[in-house]
Amino acid sequence: MKAAYYGGAETITIGESSAAAPGAGEVRIRVSHCGICGTDLHIFHGKMDHRVRLPQVIGHEMSGTIEALGEGVDGWSAGDRVTVRPLDPCGECPACKAGHTHICMKLKFIGIDTPGAMQGLWTVPAHTLHRLPDALSFEQGALIEPLAVACHDVRLSELAPGEFAVVQGGGPIGLLIALVARAAGGRVLISELNPFRLKLARELGFEAVDPRETDLVACVNERTGGAGADVVFEVSGVAAAAEMMTKLPRTRGRIVVVAIYSQPAPVHLFQFFWRELKLIGARVYEAQDFEKAITLAAEGTLPLERVVTRVLPLEELTEGFREMERGGEAMKILMRCSE
Amino acid sequence: MKAAYYGGAETITIGESSAAAPGAGEVRIRVSHCGICGTDLHIFHGKMDHRVRLPQVIGHEMSGTIEALGEGVDGWSAGDRVTVRPLDPCGECPACKAGHTHICMKLKFIGIDTPGAMQGLWTVPAHTLHRLPDALSFEQGALIEPLAVACHDVRLSELAPGEFAVVQGGGPIGLLIALVARAAGGRVLISELNPFRLKLARELGFEAVDPRETDLVACVNERTGGAGADVVFEVSGVAAAAEMMTKLPRTRGRIVVVAIYSQPAPVHLFQFFWRELKLIGARVYEAQDFEKAITLAAEGTLPLERVVTRVLPLEELTEGFREMERGGEAMKILMRCSE
Repeated sequence: MKAAYYGGAETITIGESSAAAPGAGEVRIRVSHCGICGTDLHIFHGKMDHRVRLPQVIGHEMSGTIEALGEGVDGWSAGDRVTVRPLDPCGECPACKAGHTHICMKLKFIGIDTPGAMQGLWTVPAHTLHRLPDALSFEQGALIEPLAVACHDVRLSELAPGEFAVVQGGGPIGLLIALVARAAGGRVLISELNPFRLKLARELGFEAVDPRETDLVACVNERTGGAGADVVFEVSGVAAAAEMMTKLPRTRGRIVVVAIYSQPAPVHLFQFFWRELKLIGARVYEAQDFEKAITLAAEGTLPLERVVTRVLPLEELTEGFREMERGGEAMKILMRCSE
Repeated sequence: MKAAYYGGAETITIGESSAAAPGAGEVRIRVSHCGICGTDLHIFHGKMDHRVRLPQVIGHEMSGTIEALGEGVDGWSAGDRVTVRPLDPCGECPACKAGHTHICMKLKFIGIDTPGAMQGLWTVPAHTLHRLPDALSFEQGALIEPLAVACHDVRLSELAPGEFAVVQGGGPIGLLIALVARAAGGRVLISELNPFRLKLARELGFEAVDPRETDLVACVNERTGGAGADVVFEVSGVAAAAEMMTKLPRTRGRIVVVAIYSQPAPVHLFQFFWRELKLIGARVYEAQDFEKAITLAAEGTLPLERVVTRVLPLEELTEGFREMERGGEAMKILMRCSE
């Protein structure tokens, strides 16, 4: 079985996947598909070498089949189709003790802090497993992790049916948030710069605008009778969006910050005071978000096949990264890991 | 009866209070005391001339006695001791229709957008009245408005008994927030630069530190077993505090922004993502916050007399502003308006 090793900035080497037997409480999975996340691209660019041990297999958006079980693993069998919630919390820190294990203060993110899924055989703790129903293909299964991010974000937003939501940033996570928000009964407007992503969003039935061409504030006010948006999802991570996000919500509206800002950004705190806005930070997911994502995906109403724009063999991982860098007609790119 | 007229930057003129009969739905109040708010000082400095009609009586933190009633005013009598919730919402805008009349999109703030209480006789809509119990002096009554701000802020913070709160800024509002938070069962740490305010806070039993001398992050972590603060109240409005506020909360902690930022400030949005923090904007108060403030004050356990550092006759309003500007040994300054 193959494995794709990250060996330092811009370097991927194809080697052999470790076939070590799973330890106590672990399972070994035959990985079918693994999606490339923005974080993987960040690692590929050498920006996270302080967290990655070289050479390391990365990747965490996967689907596969259990192939071997370690000692003491109950409730799972070889052949079970699964995806992995790639979080390994310490269980001891104040965040874990308060029940927020998904953002444990010493969280090991599997696929970043420990080896990932871009390989044919992958060994993980059994507590990370979620069952994939037969209704879901392995390609769809590899989308459960980012879909769970979207479910988490929409859940924390407390979006109610009929509410108006703006999604700033129409990449994979933004588009999935839009789909989940719509499934929850929300009316959704997407703000995005990339013409391909705008077009795709429109084909999926969303109103989608380029904020350089459309007066976003006026547009939102027009759609909401002058009230403003109930919820703004900030998924883009750029300073212009951090400025815009406070101009869109209604009185007591909510802003969910999903994007990762590497630098402090100027924020119009006055607007929080003036309109009593709420800003809610949202990171990864909890077990219930994975279950929700699986249920939603299995219902078959989300056009997940449109989110995947390319499927490549594992050997072409570098090409996958290059396609993401080009930023043209790419949305989610999946790697086939065990053919 | 006298009145203090603001006539443009740095100019206060003493003249006569209007004695016009109250119109339908209005009452005329004989004002006893009126506190100077930071906003009044801002007006005095000429920073809000776009909202004030010159010459105008300002002031909105008051106590007094009903002296005359207009047509159709039920439930009130001449002689009733009252304070005023100085908000006059439109009732028609999306915010009002959603029940958030206190932050009406066309809110008239009485004492800024319409004439205020720095005069012997003051006419206001009867819907703004709250009854002062006999247990409260008129000096204490003039503190109900800022105390209601504090009650609103603590309510929106959802502070639970035993939780740890940091108050950034130990001026009148910060100190009142600290008192209300402590009364709600919170453990409170105050961060403040002014030595007089630090000393006063300590005399009132709070731990109070100068963040230039004490490592605030280390201090908060030490007090909370490494978890971080449950709630941070940002009352100071300075960029250094906007930077600090994201470093103090625990995982899923809350930051309540009470301060008025005139400019966008750099905010470490990454921290919101990383620890799933919440930021909550809080402005003025709702009726229930006034009732809570009156109940709390009437219980007699809050050391409100220590919050008032000076009481001056109305003619000396300019001196009151000057004392606030000096920023030395001042906390809340009250004016006697009808002697």
